Amino acid sequence: MTQLETYITEHEERFLDELKGWLRIPSISTLPEHAGDVRAAAEYAARDLQSIGFDKVEVIATQGHPLVYGEWLNAPGKPTVLIYGHYDVQPVDPVELWDTPPFEPTIRNGNIYCRGACDDKGQTMLVFKALESLMAVDGKLPVNVKVLIEGEEEAGGESIEHYVRTTPEPLGCDAAFICDTHMPGPETPALITGLRGIIYTEVEVQGARRDLHSGTYGGIAPNPLHALAIIISKLKDEQGHIHIPGLYDKLRLAAQVERDFWENDPLNFAEALREEMGVSQLVGEAEHPPLERISARPTLEVHGIAGGFIGDGAKTVIPAVAKAKISLRLPPDLISKEIFPLFEKAVHDAAPEGVKVTVQNLHGGEGLVVDLDNPAMVAATQALKETYGKEPIYLREGGSIPVAALFNEILHVPVVLMGFGLPDDNLHAPNEKYSLAQFYRGIRTVARFLQNLA
Amino acid sequence: MTQLETYITEHEERFLDELKGWLRIPSISTLPEHAGDVRAAAEYAARDLQSIGFDKVEVIATQGHPLVYGEWLNAPGKPTVLIYGHYDVQPVDPVELWDTPPFEPTIRNGNIYCRGACDDKGQTMLVFKALESLMAVDGKLPVNVKVLIEGEEEAGGESIEHYVRTTPEPLGCDAAFICDTHMPGPETPALITGLRGIIYTEVEVQGARRDLHSGTYGGIAPNPLHALAIIISKLKDEQGHIHIPGLYDKLRLAAQVERDFWENDPLNFAEALREEMGVSQLVGEAEHPPLERISARPTLEVHGIAGGFIGDGAKTVIPAVAKAKISLRLPPDLISKEIFPLFEKAVHDAAPEGVKVTVQNLHGGEGLVVDLDNPAMVAATQALKETYGKEPIYLREGGSIPVAALFNEILHVPVVLMGFGLPDDNLHAPNEKYSLAQFYRGIRTVARFLQNLA
Repeated sequence: MTQLETYITEHEERFLDELKGWLRIPSISTLPEHAGDVRAAAEYAARDLQSIGFDKVEVIATQGHPLVYGEWLNAPGKPTVLIYGHYDVQPVDPVELWDTPPFEPTIRNGNIYCRGACDDKGQTMLVFKALESLMAVDGKLPVNVKVLIEGEEEAGGESIEHYVRTTPEPLGCDAAFICDTHMPGPETPALITGLRGIIYTEVEVQGARRDLHSGTYGGIAPNPLHALAIIISKLKDEQGHIHIPGLYDKLRLAAQVERDFWENDPLNFAEALREEMGVSQLVGEAEHPPLERISARPTLEVHGIAGGFIGDGAKTVIPAVAKAKISLRLPPDLISKEIFPLFEKAVHDAAPEGVKVTVQNLHGGEGLVVDLDNPAMVAATQALKETYGKEPIYLREGGSIPVAALFNEILHVPVVLMGFGLPDDNLHAPNEKYSLAQFYRGIRTVARFLQNLA
Repeated sequence: MTQLETYITEHEERFLDELKGWLRIPSISTLPEHAGDVRAAAEYAARDLQSIGFDKVEVIATQGHPLVYGEWLNAPGKPTVLIYGHYDVQPVDPVELWDTPPFEPTIRNGNIYCRGACDDKGQTMLVFKALESLMAVDGKLPVNVKVLIEGEEEAGGESIEHYVRTTPEPLGCDAAFICDTHMPGPETPALITGLRGIIYTEVEVQGARRDLHSGTYGGIAPNPLHALAIIISKLKDEQGHIHIPGLYDKLRLAAQVERDFWENDPLNFAEALREEMGVSQLVGEAEHPPLERISARPTLEVHGIAGGFIGDGAKTVIPAVAKAKISLRLPPDLISKEIFPLFEKAVHDAAPEGVKVTVQNLHGGEGLVVDLDNPAMVAATQALKETYGKEPIYLREGGSIPVAALFNEILHVPVVLMGFGLPDDNLHAPNEKYSLAQFYRGIRTVARFLQNLA
């Protein structure tokens, strides 16, 4: 056993305790009342970087939630890696569906349950513990490292985008590394070669100037909820086709090797996802394989519809206003700023008469395609092989990590997307969890990745 | 000035104070946490009946909220009137849209603002104060009176239905009087000659067994919110036509005089309602006049859609479950128990593949047509003419008062629907109000109605 392996094994319990401490801070970035918690989570990360031995550790104020920066640049002649993670988390509602309190880390069946356990405190903490282990064993890191952690990933990520765009020089590096993705299974290491972008919108429909009683006004009053139903049903049909003129125009045919992989589905992902969801059949565009649909096709989803009455019992109200949260996932060929106006027009065109519709672009981010041949991807491939004993597979991920596209665009560096989440980690849902085995293997893999890169 | 008129004028301020005391009790019948308040509102009513001089006043326990009963039967040879009202109120959300706290009665511009100010505490209290005034001036009432007040009108009214069906004998009477409707304007007295029935349903759609992340599952996962949008858009189209096979089959052509009234709209109601709503145009079935649409056509409305995320900011969740509250208003020819299975089937037929749909009938009630020639309607007509100085008009109301149909069906008596609400009273909405002038005129009108009936 190497010294590094021994150190990690001996400190697993403390590493877990440090993660628990971070998880207990309810750093929900979208809820203003948690702003203090978000800051506390930033300071927690900064203290950890300091104790590891990072220099220039600072909590950087922004217009929104702070960034955490630290650097260790004492490996002259070696490459420099920019490491990204986020310490903010999603809201927890519906809180009644959690088996244990969302901010009380609980161990069950080899998993740690807590909001943020995987996304992204667990994955960020394992990178920190890899850095700590390397530093403790060797007295130094094998490469130069800059760490930049944000607190708005779940809230649009505007501050980090502004920071990277306006302050690119100090972030100069040879590669970026993001630990915020997942593997298909605990024995199937994977690297992400593509990400979808996103547009997240809010569509507001105004009917009458005040809420109305359906007994008095039903039959002549515009009903914003009904108008939203019509708009949504026109935007995406029952077969999963999105009816936004121009949306599919710039979508290029994927490489033959990808199309073969989607078509053949050698690891039987689609069936695993169907079982995971507990549904009798997959829905969506039947003419495209399920793997393509979740990773490389544009998708449109409604996330919530507000307005009117949803309490117990009956209230016969026609609401004055209703709102829907609707997002689009965009493959790399589709640029969010170009697609939003098409979406906006399609919404207006779909609206029935008698209502006023406004469409707000809450945030957007671009997709990404990663080149497999760059040295950082080679080092990551090798590290996964060493830890998991097999070659990783290369996947596109359906989710959106706008900062990956940002690093690619502004810093002009390859972006390694290597994460240790699993498909059943319940991201953004009740009972989010992270596999402890993945947490510990992740520490080993990241340490090896940095060694390989040297 | 008659003694009665003098008495009412001298006591207006105290009458208002008594209403305020009742309004301060937040008797929201659909919210279990307000059960104690609902009971307190019942006891408030019982105390008032006792102080007026009613006999056998009791708060009658039920499976749900209590009924309040009182009688005064010391007018031998005179007709007996059964008076109905309700002391429960609607929920108050969205509470942030109220200009003053919903349970703090506030006087502004000649109106009293409070949840229940009109519906139906204000209207019930004016009947009580008419009874008090008659008793105070004459030492007796001109007719025999039974009062039956319920606390579940906004929550389905199951207890009063059970009570009337199982205990009809003690409720025997010559006419029923319900003060829970409105007039088209403060100078346009009206009597209601028809009511629509209602079915209030909840449609639940289940997709996956847990909430999902749209980045990972978007493209293959059923989205219950999208499924609801499709269902709702199929149930009612943009032109207001309801697509429930069989729904319109039993609808009979209305009398020519009604059709003429709807077509001609001599009081320009439709325009007044359009202005009241603050919309540029009325929506709905263009081939039927607006007045027919709001009073005599079946309507379908969505009242709320639950599921997913509707907070500030962005959460990319595909919810496991979503629910919609959907009601139908039914003209008297359509029977709720016959229509519900048609609705249920239409919902199932409209559902896209890959989701599980259940339809729950939360409550239903029948419509009513009232005969104009019965002595009670004649007495009410005369009373309105005396107070307002002009003949009342006869209207159908689009709303549902299931208890009216129940009295008609079980007690076989004419039902006088004479109320003093105004179209802008914001029933079931923020800033519910009641006109003080209508409150005081209502007291005078009801006292005269009972005198005329003798």
